[in-house]
Amino acid sequence: MIEETIRQITPVPTDTLSKAEAHLDRLTKPLGSLGRLEKIAARLVGIQGEPPHVGRRRAVVFAADHGVTTQGVSAYPREVTKQMVLNFLAGGAAINVLGRQAGAEVRVVDVGVDADFAAAGLLSAKVARGTRDFTREPAMTTDEARRAMTVGIEQAREAAADSIDCLVTGDMGIGNSTAAAAIYCALLPANPSEMVGRGTGVDDAGLARKRWAIEVGLARHRLSAADPVAALAAVGGFEIAAIAGLCLGGVAARIPVVVDGFIAGAGALAAIRMKPIVQHYLFFGHCSQEGGHRRFLEAIDERPLLDLDMRLGEGTGAMLASYLLEAACRIYTEMATFESAGVSQKGSEPLQP
Amino acid sequence: MIEETIRQITPVPTDTLSKAEAHLDRLTKPLGSLGRLEKIAARLVGIQGEPPHVGRRRAVVFAADHGVTTQGVSAYPREVTKQMVLNFLAGGAAINVLGRQAGAEVRVVDVGVDADFAAAGLLSAKVARGTRDFTREPAMTTDEARRAMTVGIEQAREAAADSIDCLVTGDMGIGNSTAAAAIYCALLPANPSEMVGRGTGVDDAGLARKRWAIEVGLARHRLSAADPVAALAAVGGFEIAAIAGLCLGGVAARIPVVVDGFIAGAGALAAIRMKPIVQHYLFFGHCSQEGGHRRFLEAIDERPLLDLDMRLGEGTGAMLASYLLEAACRIYTEMATFESAGVSQKGSEPLQP
Repeated sequence: MIEETIRQITPVPTDTLSKAEAHLDRLTKPLGSLGRLEKIAARLVGIQGEPPHVGRRRAVVFAADHGVTTQGVSAYPREVTKQMVLNFLAGGAAINVLGRQAGAEVRVVDVGVDADFAAAGLLSAKVARGTRDFTREPAMTTDEARRAMTVGIEQAREAAADSIDCLVTGDMGIGNSTAAAAIYCALLPANPSEMVGRGTGVDDAGLARKRWAIEVGLARHRLSAADPVAALAAVGGFEIAAIAGLCLGGVAARIPVVVDGFIAGAGALAAIRMKPIVQHYLFFGHCSQEGGHRRFLEAIDERPLLDLDMRLGEGTGAMLASYLLEAACRIYTEMATFESAGVSQKGSEPLQP
Repeated sequence: MIEETIRQITPVPTDTLSKAEAHLDRLTKPLGSLGRLEKIAARLVGIQGEPPHVGRRRAVVFAADHGVTTQGVSAYPREVTKQMVLNFLAGGAAINVLGRQAGAEVRVVDVGVDADFAAAGLLSAKVARGTRDFTREPAMTTDEARRAMTVGIEQAREAAADSIDCLVTGDMGIGNSTAAAAIYCALLPANPSEMVGRGTGVDDAGLARKRWAIEVGLARHRLSAADPVAALAAVGGFEIAAIAGLCLGGVAARIPVVVDGFIAGAGALAAIRMKPIVQHYLFFGHCSQEGGHRRFLEAIDERPLLDLDMRLGEGTGAMLASYLLEAACRIYTEMATFESAGVSQKGSEPLQP
């Protein structure tokens, strides 16, 4: 399914883009004066055709646990992953609040939580009860990594079947900022000291343990940017692999994907390394305060839509940013043109001298 | 009315702020991980008390013409001000589109358009048919400047009477980026070359004319940051003075005001120079690409909420940013606490060892 999905990904047609720009230039505003909203609108037309539309949005929050937490890399105990899944299902987490504000759906997918549980509304696609500790052995087998990616692709296909206009990546997993940092180090590549951050709030000793764990993991598994699946398997997380799959599947279905912060970026990077034109379909929602997220965005030449010092994950930054995509669509489809509104053009002679 | 309004402005109580921060720390997220949303929420609690609320929002778009347009400082003919007012009333402009998206009301107030016209929905508070050319004489008399400010204060009072939770500043006026730049030069103070920009899109010769006009105006009128009303009268615009009044009146009524870009910033600066604590009640919506807007924001130590390369005015950037204020309110009021959701706290022992 992964290879088939990648084969379906084609470049954004450039002629649609220039047609969209011509339409934007007819709207009642100085040329280009809506800045990035205009660029977003044109990109969406390229991806979706006319008219651009992101009214039906869905966040898919993938949850999973991480073996590397045994090395003391998180400020929170491991069972918080499950507790937060229940919080998502009860509607009390930040992503629920921001999803309600956006009028968007929030799906929660258990792709590897270390607990046997079922709950109303929870989609179960568990690959295993957490990854293994990557400082000692690969976090997952290649087969497990591919299964987690497939979970993401299946979610994208369901979104397409449900006529979803726009996907928002979400994640939950105690320990996942360590796994994400390791993925960046392998796939950018970068040094652990550039990418590691305090995650949910570890102290200096915890930060040192995170850096140590990543260094050990990278030394043990000898990863390369040329093999992103191997990197996901060796040091990644099930939710990160699922996000990579969601990006690939969304792009294959020509659904724009708004990528959240540090964790989601690692999944998006894996997808980009598998098929570089994936990046043309992704919108980077915000710059996280976590670790080297800004460094990552600069490395792939992306300017995030929002910069609000957030570092929560769950899809919160991307969900907020999806409002800007909706604004771009509305500008494109609802604004009057100079002609329709009877407004004089730039440089024209005064009507009433 | 201006002096009475200024007397009503009192500091934001600091104890409310710290109570708000304590509440935010109980919500199911790592401490501070919602970044600027948390800071916005705490500020709103300081301004409004509990619970913070911005559900009912109103943009007030003040429109006026500028005598300095006779010096060739705009790429668009002067009658576009009136034409755009009609476009606002017909719902076809960018601010209408973004207002509808936000569920916000858009009011249009003629405070000095150079045309005799009435139209359904237009609020008429015309001080004069445009200002005078400030390169030759004061743009307005002190009395006219005070009347324009009073129009803004009255709009704030009406908003309070209508139970509006949040005001968004809007503006329309061909030539107003020249007037705004002159205000910044007088009140920051700053040099014309730092503050002047291409406005609606003048070429290099137009840019040179703008700079010349501002230099002549500043040399002629000898302004000082200590007398903002004199600066508004000498080189300002009716819509800029009205925005200064809207800021003062909004703050006096403890209504948070989201300030738009370059033009609105000049009005906000005048209000801040009249009463510095006004700034505690203002939210700077975005960084405009126009002229020295970034320089202005840095000078008053404000970090704008959005940075989207916009330079349209009308209140568009502030209207978009008001979504973030709403997000902050919803986070504050709707999120579960660690206790209510049964989520383990940072550093706690695992429940299931």
